[in-house]
Amino acid sequence: MRRTSRDIRVANRFEVLRHIVAARGESRSVSRQQIATDTGLSLATAANLVGELLDLGLLVEVGYQDSNGGRPRALVSINPDGGRLVGIDVAETYVHVEVFDPALTVLASVEEELHPEENRPEQVVRHIVSSFEAANVDPARVLGVGISVPGQVDTDGGVSVFAPNWNWHDVPLRTLLAGELNLPLYLDNPLRACLVAELWFGAGRGRQDVVVVNLGTGVGAGLAFGGELYRGATNSAGEWGHTTLVVDGRLCHCGSRGCVETYVGAPGIMQNLRDMAPTSPMLHPDDQTATIAALARGVAGGDPVAVKVVTETARYLGVAVADLINLVNPEVIVLSSWVAAQLGGPLLAEVRAVVDRHALRRPRAATDITLSALAGNPVSLGAATFALKRYLSALRTPLRS
Amino acid sequence: MRRTSRDIRVANRFEVLRHIVAARGESRSVSRQQIATDTGLSLATAANLVGELLDLGLLVEVGYQDSNGGRPRALVSINPDGGRLVGIDVAETYVHVEVFDPALTVLASVEEELHPEENRPEQVVRHIVSSFEAANVDPARVLGVGISVPGQVDTDGGVSVFAPNWNWHDVPLRTLLAGELNLPLYLDNPLRACLVAELWFGAGRGRQDVVVVNLGTGVGAGLAFGGELYRGATNSAGEWGHTTLVVDGRLCHCGSRGCVETYVGAPGIMQNLRDMAPTSPMLHPDDQTATIAALARGVAGGDPVAVKVVTETARYLGVAVADLINLVNPEVIVLSSWVAAQLGGPLLAEVRAVVDRHALRRPRAATDITLSALAGNPVSLGAATFALKRYLSALRTPLRS
Repeated sequence: MRRTSRDIRVANRFEVLRHIVAARGESRSVSRQQIATDTGLSLATAANLVGELLDLGLLVEVGYQDSNGGRPRALVSINPDGGRLVGIDVAETYVHVEVFDPALTVLASVEEELHPEENRPEQVVRHIVSSFEAANVDPARVLGVGISVPGQVDTDGGVSVFAPNWNWHDVPLRTLLAGELNLPLYLDNPLRACLVAELWFGAGRGRQDVVVVNLGTGVGAGLAFGGELYRGATNSAGEWGHTTLVVDGRLCHCGSRGCVETYVGAPGIMQNLRDMAPTSPMLHPDDQTATIAALARGVAGGDPVAVKVVTETARYLGVAVADLINLVNPEVIVLSSWVAAQLGGPLLAEVRAVVDRHALRRPRAATDITLSALAGNPVSLGAATFALKRYLSALRTPLRS
Repeated sequence: MRRTSRDIRVANRFEVLRHIVAARGESRSVSRQQIATDTGLSLATAANLVGELLDLGLLVEVGYQDSNGGRPRALVSINPDGGRLVGIDVAETYVHVEVFDPALTVLASVEEELHPEENRPEQVVRHIVSSFEAANVDPARVLGVGISVPGQVDTDGGVSVFAPNWNWHDVPLRTLLAGELNLPLYLDNPLRACLVAELWFGAGRGRQDVVVVNLGTGVGAGLAFGGELYRGATNSAGEWGHTTLVVDGRLCHCGSRGCVETYVGAPGIMQNLRDMAPTSPMLHPDDQTATIAALARGVAGGDPVAVKVVTETARYLGVAVADLINLVNPEVIVLSSWVAAQLGGPLLAEVRAVVDRHALRRPRAATDITLSALAGNPVSLGAATFALKRYLSALRTPLRS
């Protein structure tokens, strides 16, 4: 792919910041020399980009490091006061807002419930605005707001192209929000947000080929190839929830039949329970969250119906994960989002067993299958990293003339 | 991904040659200025790399071009006498050898039949050697030999890791061949070879995200992301033939059930015919090639059983192609290999109709689905391009000191 020198400069600027941010949890400060070594940039380029990020107030000088008899090396670190980033996870059942410093450390967190029926664009917009306000961040300090909505998104246009669970078609969400939130808004979806969160801070760190499987009301897969988020031709790669597991199987709201989502999304799991035990007290017909929570408690307590539902769900999920291994041959597959968090270990164990029977041996041996170990909400985290990237891309280049 | 300056130089050397080779069929000659413009390299770098390729005898100077009043620009072109490349397609039913000049123009072509039972490593090696000899190329002029074998391949080790249709496990094919063919040998598989052939010369030219679906005895998908072949963590990406279309469906020799291959590979199509018309005269129980050819003639002649078999096959193939669109969101999906060539237009029309019902609308609209339009054998062509790339990578860098 051809790139202009501006593209390369913006990418390098972001890469330097990403490198320093990703160092959080380890040493919190780093020298220009170390950045150059770790990113493959020349020391002059690394120093120049660090200078830009200092000018922007995203970095601060924090002291010196001995260098084995040489001159002490200046250390820089992320400036925790260098502006705020906001990540908003709009899901079918809640709106979750998190406020971050430039190191992507969470400073505040707000969640509002969303009833699955409360899904007209103006209703969703109202919840986004009210939860943003509840998070109580000074708008003047906000560098950008990343918003994740389910389904297919036109990122450049700020449009929700298709959200099957809400039956949204071409909803101009950024325009609808612009009057209420007069800030740089960046729209994407949870598949991509979770992928980026894992790539920066989770099981995807330092890996090239990564799949993050999102298990919520809808299901899908975020994909990274060569260490970079993969979007596909029209930013809709990863609609694994709408790949077919059973030809002529369960009807899906996408219009097709037998989609992965109809067996392993929260409503699909409720259907698995209903098929097995239609009168189970774990079944809350109008409440996915309560049903999945009841199943999780049931499994923990050894309830045979709950165990059987997880096994049945894993029978489908394991086959669909094996498909990802055979097709994509990734280094790691991360199970993420609220259904994965709730059903956790027991689901993972069953999935691994099914995958072992269905995936080709060699790629299977090369793939870790793991639960997301990220604390907090990975979608908000990923959405905030998109906002940070967008902020850096929109600056003029070079900053110093 | 971090790359050394040697990696970058080798990649650029290859990119320049690729650019000139891919210009075949259009203007056959190109200036250094044009190469710089088209590849994004500086003129100095492009000129330096052209110099290397001239020294190697892969390019020749072919005259001058007016440049609107400026100095006339020297033109270079591929040297048709600059060595030979050999591409060998080892399939379940034949061995096909092609000899190419450095512009990847076919100079000679030889095919030997391989009986499906004739699949012990020493039998296959014997056929590779005898068909290479029949192609009558002077070994002293051969820059490299690319060999494609079905299944999963360890390219660096030259080992066939797993060929399910032959039940091969870890066959050290390059070592077995080395005594007979004392030439640089490069092993890969037909998925990757076809992908590269389409990317250089076919429907993938100038495109970023490309899927080449291989329909033969086995089936699979070659993948390109960002204009480059994607291999995955262990060089086994693209085993789409072993993704599940029907949970608990037909038994597959990979050990799993309901794999795509069991419905749309040549033996799967034979099974579709057998299920529908067990005594059909089109069915040649021990001969896939003859059965598929009979079906193709039947469809052309309007035979209702043949038409029904193609419709039934497309019902599965279309769903599996829709899965690729939803997951990968490519710009183009090319149907390639001998089964696609035989069943051609009628299969394509049915597949498109099924995809329209199963794929998500937006990515569907962004994907061309097409038959391979490459003349000759795309696997041999792709294998020869691998050999060319390997030849260029193995040279010392820089060539000129």
